[in-house]
Amino acid sequence: MRYWEDFRPGQVFDLGSCTVTRDEIIDFGRRWIPQPFHVDEHAARHSPFGGLVASGWHTACIFMRLYYDHLLADAASMGSPGVRELRWMAPVRPGDVLHASATVLRTAQSATRVGRGTVEMRWECMKTDGTIVLRMIGTAYFARRNRRENA
Amino acid sequence: MRYWEDFRPGQVFDLGSCTVTRDEIIDFGRRWIPQPFHVDEHAARHSPFGGLVASGWHTACIFMRLYYDHLLADAASMGSPGVRELRWMAPVRPGDVLHASATVLRTAQSATRVGRGTVEMRWECMKTDGTIVLRMIGTAYFARRNRRENA
Repeated sequence: MRYWEDFRPGQVFDLGSCTVTRDEIIDFGRRWIPQPFHVDEHAARHSPFGGLVASGWHTACIFMRLYYDHLLADAASMGSPGVRELRWMAPVRPGDVLHASATVLRTAQSATRVGRGTVEMRWECMKTDGTIVLRMIGTAYFARRNRRENA
Repeated sequence: MRYWEDFRPGQVFDLGSCTVTRDEIIDFGRRWIPQPFHVDEHAARHSPFGGLVASGWHTACIFMRLYYDHLLADAASMGSPGVRELRWMAPVRPGDVLHASATVLRTAQSATRVGRGTVEMRWECMKTDGTIVLRMIGTAYFARRNRRENA
């Protein structure tokens, strides 16, 4: 189990990869943001993107799933207050393989909560050709070892 | 159809509301970020949140759906480069009714693309008791009227 004390600036976590499929792009788009270029292949060809592209929120969710599976599932996560920058840097298209990573930028003890600390990270998804498609600077809360507030 | 020229600083768009259900919180959590406090009611009671809470990414997607239904569906959207601040300010729990709004902060012509302009907006979700649960400063691209790049 990874606690706040286990994060250090400069650490890079490899979060694995996954392939984005056409069906998933359309499913996510239909449920949450059915703009033509997310849900309709014909209309997408005539859009500024020239073809179907994943919603940026879908890409963020794909990142979160990889982040969960490869880091958060085995960490004392206490949620997150937010992300101070979220950039969609290039379109994500059907068949793209996204590789995710997390780089620790800063850690800090909480001024008010003895049981937790914050970790600021750069979260990225990159295609196999090296193009970064998603970059976020996110903050996460983790419990401190042997100082759990609910203990 | 709403074009870039139709947005002006200070405009506030009411984007309607929706109720967040227990089942949807769990479904979204299972698919994208299965932390115990998103997917397991018993474990959630013993978590820092004291009960089941929606993933912040779920709340962001709920916002996007309301934003799409009440504004984007009838606008010449050309996507978004990102969000410069995304804050989850309070937990979202089963049964919460979220009311969404968009406030135009700034508009700008594109320096390089004659056919589009940018609109910076504050996007918020608020509970019925007035608590703001989500706040984002997002940028959106819209086509300019009679200057469509693909025309």
